[in-house]
Formats: sequence, C-alpha cells, structure tokens
Amino acid sequence: MRVAVVGASGYVGLELLRILLRHPEVELVAVTSEQRAGEPLGVAFPGLAGLLDLELEPNDPKAIAGRCELAFTALPHAVSAPTVASLHGAGVAVIDVSGDFRLHDLALYERYYGAHGARDLFGKAVYGLPELHREAIAGASLVAAPGCYPTGTLLPLVPFLRAGRIEPAPVHVDAKSGVSGAGRKLEGGLLFAEVDASFRAYGVGGAHRHVPEIEQEASRAAGEEVRVAFTPHLLPTTRGLATSVYARPRGALRSAEARAILGEAWQAEPFVRLLPEGETPSLAAVRGTNFCDVQALVDERTGSLLLLSAIDNLGKGASGQAVQCMNRMRGWPETTALLEAPLLP
Amino acid sequence: MRVAVVGASGYVGLELLRILLRHPEVELVAVTSEQRAGEPLGVAFPGLAGLLDLELEPNDPKAIAGRCELAFTALPHAVSAPTVASLHGAGVAVIDVSGDFRLHDLALYERYYGAHGARDLFGKAVYGLPELHREAIAGASLVAAPGCYPTGTLLPLVPFLRAGRIEPAPVHVDAKSGVSGAGRKLEGGLLFAEVDASFRAYGVGGAHRHVPEIEQEASRAAGEEVRVAFTPHLLPTTRGLATSVYARPRGALRSAEARAILGEAWQAEPFVRLLPEGETPSLAAVRGTNFCDVQALVDERTGSLLLLSAIDNLGKGASGQAVQCMNRMRGWPETTALLEAPLLP
Amino acid sequence: MRVAVVGASGYVGLELLRILLRHPEVELVAVTSEQRAGEPLGVAFPGLAGLLDLELEPNDPKAIAGRCELAFTALPHAVSAPTVASLHGAGVAVIDVSGDFRLHDLALYERYYGAHGARDLFGKAVYGLPELHREAIAGASLVAAPGCYPTGTLLPLVPFLRAGRIEPAPVHVDAKSGVSGAGRKLEGGLLFAEVDASFRAYGVGGAHRHVPEIEQEASRAAGEEVRVAFTPHLLPTTRGLATSVYARPRGALRSAEARAILGEAWQAEPFVRLLPEGETPSLAAVRGTNFCDVQALVDERTGSLLLLSAIDNLGKGASGQAVQCMNRMRGWPETTALLEAPLLP
Amino acid sequence: MRVAVVGASGYVGLELLRILLRHPEVELVAVTSEQRAGEPLGVAFPGLAGLLDLELEPNDPKAIAGRCELAFTALPHAVSAPTVASLHGAGVAVIDVSGDFRLHDLALYERYYGAHGARDLFGKAVYGLPELHREAIAGASLVAAPGCYPTGTLLPLVPFLRAGRIEPAPVHVDAKSGVSGAGRKLEGGLLFAEVDASFRAYGVGGAHRHVPEIEQEASRAAGEEVRVAFTPHLLPTTRGLATSVYARPRGALRSAEARAILGEAWQAEPFVRLLPEGETPSLAAVRGTNFCDVQALVDERTGSLLLLSAIDNLGKGASGQAVQCMNRMRGWPETTALLEAPLLP
Repeated sequence: MRVAVVGASGYVGLELLRILLRHPEVELVAVTSEQRAGEPLGVAFPGLAGLLDLELEPNDPKAIAGRCELAFTALPHAVSAPTVASLHGAGVAVIDVSGDFRLHDLALYERYYGAHGARDLFGKAVYGLPELHREAIAGASLVAAPGCYPTGTLLPLVPFLRAGRIEPAPVHVDAKSGVSGAGRKLEGGLLFAEVDASFRAYGVGGAHRHVPEIEQEASRAAGEEVRVAFTPHLLPTTRGLATSVYARPRGALRSAEARAILGEAWQAEPFVRLLPEGETPSLAAVRGTNFCDVQALVDERTGSLLLLSAIDNLGKGASGQAVQCMNRMRGWPETTALLEAPLLP
Repeated sequence: MRVAVVGASGYVGLELLRILLRHPEVELVAVTSEQRAGEPLGVAFPGLAGLLDLELEPNDPKAIAGRCELAFTALPHAVSAPTVASLHGAGVAVIDVSGDFRLHDLALYERYYGAHGARDLFGKAVYGLPELHREAIAGASLVAAPGCYPTGTLLPLVPFLRAGRIEPAPVHVDAKSGVSGAGRKLEGGLLFAEVDASFRAYGVGGAHRHVPEIEQEASRAAGEEVRVAFTPHLLPTTRGLATSVYARPRGALRSAEARAILGEAWQAEPFVRLLPEGETPSLAAVRGTNFCDVQALVDERTGSLLLLSAIDNLGKGASGQAVQCMNRMRGWPETTALLEAPLLP
Repeated sequence: MRVAVVGASGYVGLELLRILLRHPEVELVAVTSEQRAGEPLGVAFPGLAGLLDLELEPNDPKAIAGRCELAFTALPHAVSAPTVASLHGAGVAVIDVSGDFRLHDLALYERYYGAHGARDLFGKAVYGLPELHREAIAGASLVAAPGCYPTGTLLPLVPFLRAGRIEPAPVHVDAKSGVSGAGRKLEGGLLFAEVDASFRAYGVGGAHRHVPEIEQEASRAAGEEVRVAFTPHLLPTTRGLATSVYARPRGALRSAEARAILGEAWQAEPFVRLLPEGETPSLAAVRGTNFCDVQALVDERTGSLLLLSAIDNLGKGASGQAVQCMNRMRGWPETTALLEAPLLP
Repeated sequence: MRVAVVGASGYVGLELLRILLRHPEVELVAVTSEQRAGEPLGVAFPGLAGLLDLELEPNDPKAIAGRCELAFTALPHAVSAPTVASLHGAGVAVIDVSGDFRLHDLALYERYYGAHGARDLFGKAVYGLPELHREAIAGASLVAAPGCYPTGTLLPLVPFLRAGRIEPAPVHVDAKSGVSGAGRKLEGGLLFAEVDASFRAYGVGGAHRHVPEIEQEASRAAGEEVRVAFTPHLLPTTRGLATSVYARPRGALRSAEARAILGEAWQAEPFVRLLPEGETPSLAAVRGTNFCDVQALVDERTGSLLLLSAIDNLGKGASGQAVQCMNRMRGWPETTALLEAPLLP
C-alpha cells in the first residue's frame, strides 16, 4: 500500500517513518515538511540517510492525494483539520494524530482548542484506541489516534469503569511525560538546560487539552459521567509516559481481584502487558515499543485502588498506535511491524 | 562550635560538609567513613581538595565524643542507633539523619525497620522539622531529622490538617525522588544505564519506610488518624523530590482560600515559599538549597485539593534541614549558612 | 538457523536478542545467564515479555552445543575463552564479543588481560570487522567481534593508513563512550548519581585494553607500526561512542581530498555513512543502529587531519556488528535485520 | 561596594547573582534584563524568591551608571560593546563576560565576530585570567573575562609554553562543553530532546570564536606563534567543560616532570588543583565552583604530552572568574565568595 506521512519532520512523524520502514505491506511514497521542503530526507535527518530515498515536500494535500491510499497526518492541531479534510475528501484514508478529531462535542473542542478548521468533518472520526474500538476502526476511513495521556490513563482505568467497580468521580490521575510529548517547539521551557535535572507539574487544574478526551472515553466506558483531577508533569527524559491513577472502589476490592479485572480485560491484547504481582511498570521496558505495561493494586491503609501504566509516548502514545490502527483498518495482523523489543538499556 | 560528621562519605554526609564549610559558627573537627578511613578527605573526594584539611577516621563514637560538642550522624538505619546512643551518652548533642529515631511507636519501627539498636533511647528524640516543632528542637539534645518524603509531604499538607479542612483518609500522595535519595548503594537498579531515561514507582502499597513517619506527624497535626496511599517513584535525576498530594476538602474550598491557608501557615518561614498563583514548584528552583516551594489549588472538575511541593532531597530533605535544626538548637539565626541561591541552571 | 546467546542478560546480550528477534533466518533456541538461570526471560526482563518464550539457562556449553548451529558468546573476558573453546570444539560456529580472541600476540594479550583460558584456540579467530576482513569472515567458524573503541577508531582511520597518507605515529585518539560500554557491573563509578552531569577521562596513557587491538589492526592496514595516544572518556549517556582522531598528513592534504579518500574507501559499505561536508557525526543519528557515521577534514591552522566518527557502542560497537558477521558467515545479505532507523529523538 | 549585573537573566548573569549574593563586600543595586524588565527578580525566577528584593530593569547604562561603582556585563557580543563603553565612560569599573574585548587584533575580531560596537575602547581591556595577568587586573578599570574554552585550555597549557617544553604547533585541543555554554538561545539544536543522550562536535576546523582567543594568549605565553586544531563538542549536561590537549614535547619529557611543571606553575593558585597521579579531572568535582582541576601525563607509546582539565563553564569559565577578577581589582582576597565545595553528587 502506498502511504504518505504529512508532517514527517516532527517527532511523531519521524517515529512513524521508523516504524513504517520496517512494515512489509507499506511503501512510503510521500513525506512532507513545511520547514525542510525540498531537502532529501537523509540530508534533513542524517540519521535516516541510506534508509529512504525521498525528498521532503510541502504539506500540500492536493499534490499528495493522488499518489497514496492512506495518509498519516502529524501536524499541530488547527493546522491539521483542513489538511485531513482535503485528503479525506479526495478518497484517501486518513489517520490523524493531532487533537482535531478526537472529541465529539464541538463546544468542548472550541473551549480547549479554539475554532475548528473543518467543522463538516468534526465528529466523524473513529477514536483510534484499538483496545476500546477495534470494530469501528476496522471499517473507518478517518481515525483520530488518541493522545498520549489518554492512552496511558484509559488502558488501566477502563476495565474498572466498565465493571462498575470504582466511583466515577473523583479519579486522581498523576501523569509524567517525557519532553518529546511537547513536539519540537522552540520554547524556553523545553531547552536542555531548563529540563535537565528538573521536574515540574504543568497544565494543572483541568487546563490540559487531554482532560476532555480522557473524560469522554472514560464516561463512554462507564456509562456515567467520569471526572478526573489530572496533573501532568514534565520528566527529564526524551521519551516515555508514566501514569498513576487513584480511585475509590465501589464495594470491597482487593489487590488480587483488581489484578484479575485488569488481566481478564486485556488478556487477548498483544500490546497490553499486566506485570507480575509486585512489579511496577518502567519506562525502560517500553522504550521504542508499542507496549503499554500495567499494574493494579489496592492500598491496604486507605482502600484506594492504584493503577500504574507505562508507555512510550511516541509509540503506543502516538505513532505505534497509529500504525496499529492502520493494520486493523487494512485487515493485517495488528502486530505487523510493531512487535519489537525495547531498547534495553 | 566543634562539630563532627559521622558518615561523611555518603551523599547526605557530603552535603553536610558542603553546608558546614560555609557556616561561620562551626569548626569541623572530625569526619568519619568506614570505607575510606585513613584517607585525607581531599584524596577520597578530589572535589573537596583545598577546602578542608582533615583525614577520614573510622566511625568510632568514643574517639570522637571528647572532641566535639555536636555530631551529625549520617549512617544507615540500624547502624546509626548505637552510635547515636554512645555519642549522646557522652554528652554530645546529636542530629541523626537516619530513620532510627523518627518514630514514636517501637512496634511500628520494628515492623518497618527490624530490631532497634538502642531501645533505651528510642522515642527520646525530637522530630526535627522546625516548621512543626521549633520550640522542642530549641531545647533538644537529640534530634531526628525527618525523611525526605515526609518533609515534602508534610509541609504542604499539615496546614490543611491542622485547620480541619480536609478528610484525613484517604490522602493520595504521589511522590518522585532523585536517585541520591537511595544513597550510594551498589544496587543494579541504581546504575546509570538502568535509571537514565527511565522512571518507575517502587515501594508501592504502603511498603515504604516513610509511610509510618508521614502518618505519625500528619495524625499529630490533625488530631485524628490520617491514612495515606503513598506511591514513591525514582526520577532520572540525581537530586530533587517533587510531591503531589490529592485530598478531599471538608466543606467548600476554593483555590484562593487554599492558597491563603498555606500562605498564612508558613508566612514567617524563611524556607517555605508559596509560589504565585499559576506557578508550579520545580526541582530546578530548589536545587542545592534548603527551600521547600509549595502550591495549592482546588480542581474544579472534581473538587479535590491538589498540593504540590518541591525540595532538594539532600537539602531541605536531609542535610540542610539538619543544619537548620542545629541553628535552632544553638540559638543562631535559622538561616545561617542556608540562604543560598539555587544552581540555575 | 538455530542460534544460542550465551550471556544474554548483559547489555550486549540483550541487544543481541533485540536484533535477532527480528531476524527472519534465525530461531533463538537457548539464552543463558548465570545470575538469572531458571527464570523465564520475560520475568527476568519484563521488557521482553510477550516477545520470546524461553527460560534462561546456566552458561553450560555442553548443554547448548547439540541444540544450536551458531552461538554468540557475550561473557566477560577470561570467562569467555573456555566456553568458546567448548562450543567450537563441539562444532558450533561461534561469534565471541569478549576480548579473548581479538589479539594475535599472546604475550600482548597476557599483559593486558592476564592468563588466557583456551590457549590452543588463541589466534585462530577472524577479527570480525567486515569492512576490513569480509572474505575471511565468510569462511570462519570462529569470529572475534571487535571492541567498540577499535570499531569507532579504525573505520575512519584505516583508509588513510592504507593509502599511506598519514604518519603512523603519533596518532591522537580522543574517544567518548556511553556507560553501557562498561557492562552491568556493580561499581561505584557507574552509579547514576556519579555519572549523571559528569564526564571524565579514564584508562589514560595507553592503559586501556583496546589500545593493542587498535594498534594491531591499524598496523596491519598501514603495513608499518602505528602508535596511538588513546584517551577514553565516560559520557553521561547510556549508549553511543564518539571518536576524534588527530593525525599528521604525509605530504599535502586538503579537506576535499580527505573526504574523497574516506568516501571512496567505504562507498560500497551499507553501514558506513560519510556525512555531507560541514556536518558532524552525532550519537543521536546512530542510536540503536548498526551505522558508523564518519567525517574528515583538514584543519587549516595546523594542517592536522581530523577524523570524527559516531557509533552505537551496543550496535556497530558490539551486537549489531556480531550479527553482521553472522550474516556474512552464512551468506545472507549483510544488512539482514540491521537496516533499522535510529530512535529519533 | 554597589554592583550592577547587566544581563542578569542569562545563565552567566544568574550565576553571577548566585555568587554575589554570598559576597560580604558587595551590595547588588541593579539587575537588568531586556526580556523580563519590570518583573521582580523573584517572580521572573522563582528560585531567587526570598533572596534578593530587586526589580529587573531594562539594559540602560545611563540609568545604572550613577548608582553603582562596578558593573558586570553579561550580554551577547556586539550588544555588549556599546553598553560597556557607556558605563566605562561614566566612570564605572566594568567586567565584561562577552567576547567583545578579549582580542587585541581588531581585524581578527571582525573576522570572527563582525563589526565592533565600540572601536575606541577595543584593545583597552585587560584579559581577565588572574593566573596569567594578575597584576594588570589589579589596576584595571575594564576587564574582559575569558571564554570558557580558553580558560580550560590555557590553564594546563601555558606552563609548558612558557617553559618552552612543547612544540607550538600543532597543538590538538579536544574540548567538551555543557549546554549552558551556549546560553539560553531558542535554537532547535539546544532542545532537550535533541541534546539528551547525544553528543557531537561543532564549529570544527578553526571556526569557533574561541580559537583566536586561545591562540592570542597561548602565543603571548610562548613568545612564539601557537597554532591549535580545536574541536569543541556539546555534552548532554547543563554545566561543565572538559578539555584534552595533545602536544609534542621539545626534547625528552616524562610524566613526573610534566606534573612537576604544572604543579610548580600553579602551586600558589587557590583555584587550580593538580590532581594526584593517576586521577583524572571530572566535571562533578568542580560543579558549581571556581576550581580548575588539571592533570598532565606523557603517553609512553607515542611520547605525546596529554593535558586534561575540568571546569564549570559558568564558574571558572565565566561568572566565578569574573568575581575573582573583581576581588583582585578591589584588593580583596581573591577567594572571597568563591571557596565553595562542589555540589556532590
């Protein structure tokens, strides 16, 4: 299948290339970048020299549409929507990794993101978390790949919401992300000397754009309104996203049962790994992969349920997940090109 | 005043030396290290060459007692207790940074630490958090400097417990520490290649030794039993400890009032800094200092109170705090040798 | 082909597994580890859960010999030699990544490493740098994969020695390695808090074990005795090895010609990438790969030739190179399982 | 003495504040920052809250001149010169940490930096390396604090040049700097995700602005023209600068004698520490300090002299050195406010 990556020079775009280069069913036919258009990929990114002989082109959906069957769009939100609409309108299947098509409530979108660039298409995408919406993804022509924080939060949390075993509010979510989650933005706060050896919360108090996305999918799973107190932090690492979720059980719940709920929910999933009792998810174990490692236990002192997860924010948190969606859309084994070992150490 | 540092070659001991070297009232007369005994300090630690002309001695309290008026003991728990008892029995004032004298309940100590090495002295120390126990510290001859996690948790939390404005259980404490908190132990999990670019929880479910210490002091402040679900994590940094506390308000509470409670509680404290609204504590801002930066807000979606703090685990979390206690014990200004700017960047 | 990895729990061993898991011609039949013997691989290393269903066995060559056609031995030097001898004697092709079979002069080996554990086999291995000894590797039953520093030094240096364009002594080699090059040793100097934010030279003045290896292969290429002043350093990174070589040209040499010499020497090599003029090799561009990026220029102020290279010390510096040798030995395309994009970022 | 810091919000400026805050003879009366003018210092930099009650002002030399006796100027080159000229013309003693007044040859300045912003004052500054120009600094009203690379190169190198014991060309200098050396510039290459876990050379082939500065001072010390092949690298650390110098001895030279030359040259210097034989300088040992640790040895294989040094690029490489100059200018002990222990770990 002929595939384009629109926005190939960002961190999500580069990770898409890394995965797609080893995908046996995919031929990369177009890679775009506004900033580096005109440069051979291996010149703009010497790390890719010798691997893919393409020139970066401008982000022009019209110029791309006729040459590919499927496009990944890895552009900033707002910029993404019209490009997605143009490609989709020309009959290209699209997997969008921006925030533009994840929400179903336009007012909520506008409150968190501002005006939407393709309102006709808003609400038409399938939310691309295969563990939740596998069937819908299979038939979709437009998939919105989830945000990294929602992925790390929902995979351990949803089984308990579906089973009605926890209170839907408040759910406390304390999450920590590597810097690549912010993209390659020229912001003072992302400079090495600012991030190195530091750590801090940001976007506290419900301000982060992933909050409505988490609540939308969590509420859908619960069948009732879920409310989260969400605190994201910036880790002094490039990749990786770790999440701690604290929730109140409905009725008695013990660690063994909590682990059983989690294990049974995802036992057939190739990318969700329930760790042995006593182990905790680590970023190292998922580095460069599409895995989400999870753990559950009940704190005996307080009765609270603690859920832990770890993903690579560029893997299962973005590009890996997007490729998993593509595999599902095309009917290929979902693990194609994705069953790689982590970079250890 | 003549001062000894027992256990000078560990990370807490080295930080004590760094601070005491600039203390105008202190003369360092003895520094000990089992492993490096016999070596000049500047040979064992070339970074200290030219700064202090002492030879490391064995940890022999009898050999030290006659030469100093006050000793800092920075030894592993269990090893510390008999040394403390010997020094204290010989009339030396002692500030112990191990866990041996922090708890008041011997059974609890034994459950978390094992047998105690100086039972006669157990329970006789003052808990060395000046913001909570300033008066008792002033008259003490034995002070147990708090653990790093309890310091980072109690300073933002206690004002709300004292005011009866939050439920005492469950309190969710999600904490993240730099690696130096574990000391210079030769453990596989502390190797650079294991920690770098990773992050993970450990000691989950109430297993960490700082849990009873947090609950002891929190309960004392609340006048009722406080129970915490405590999740410590290992950050890929050397120094620094960040804490998020999630609690349920009793009655209505808004962010402005939460900030006022915190601000009023600590307004006279030189080392607790309430950040401006909208700012979050960062490890960089406290690096190498004795400050504890704090913030409070109420999450509007859930009504939960979120408290954030940042300390240097070797500063306010250990050695800086111990020196602050010494200053208080001797009647010197508490800030002596401690009002340093952080290493920025 | 049935393959064993002996010493699978070290960093080189883990990287071998990562590469071999994606190798279409290889079936992993045995993985060994003295320390973790008896544990399923996915329990000892949760990052590998779901990827390979094998149990770690003790390092017993007799128990392995009958089950595999080829073995990678990734054991410490001295420990490796008898294991290699036993496997080789039983008809198993062996690729050894220790230092035990790289040198040809036994006295030199003994001076740098001590007594050799399989003297009959000493000197019988082919030095496994395909760019230098491709034909010999093709027919070998025992290959000694080069050290990481020799690989990073020889690939840029050898073309100039072969062409007789530089003085063979002194050659100044200033090299910098990530911490994983030291393996998973429990040494104080490898702890996170010691390595993080630091940098230092070690093994200076010709003391490092890779010096005789560099000089052996460099002299062989030059046809005269080459002498290097070699200064290795420890970088605060997990992976990656960068090398600067300073040499004196014989006769006039300009940057353009230097680049031409390098480019022509390796133009057919899939894993040696000469960077465009003005670019310098970076560790990021080779992270997780088998590439060696190189650059050459002549410093106009001094006339000195500067050669720069970057490799992943676990990739082209160890495990990737070993797999490249295996591919050559079996007649498979040398790039099989090795043409992966780097982890960017 | 009343002191101003012009350009207080850059990394060098912040480090000046950190040091000056503990200086007993200094009162900080003005701190400037174009970008943050109008903000209280403790708001712009929460890490400094509670330490200095000043508001950041614009970089207006006229507004500052009347209020201070001495000013540190920490502005980018070209921007610095007119500000320095204005302050100096108003009778304020100035210590400039930019590159604007370090060189003595205007044509060379213009080749490396472009047009100079205060040509009348060019060449009038004393080069502020106290170990080389102590007497001249004592009487100066304008001091140009050296660059970080020249400091790390000259301190180990000059004694051998003065003694005529090495060839003046070629001298190979392989240097590695932490990221803060580049200042707080918004450049893609300085983002955390680009620098972390990577390492690369830059400014190779004599292109770096510190080359003429090194050669000027080295030639002055040698009494003959010195030529260096200088290769700077970017380390994945925030602070610290390590240098390896390779030179050819004139006549026989052994390690013991080399160490003696270095030791005797700097034996009276409080900030240059010759390490014991067998030890190598490390960035950790000088972190946050004004020390320069040095080592010398002769490589037996090649006869080359190897010199190693380590400094904190913001300490002895910039702000610490500038304060040392101020101490000398005022006749205070040079070590005032500078004899601090490094941050270990």
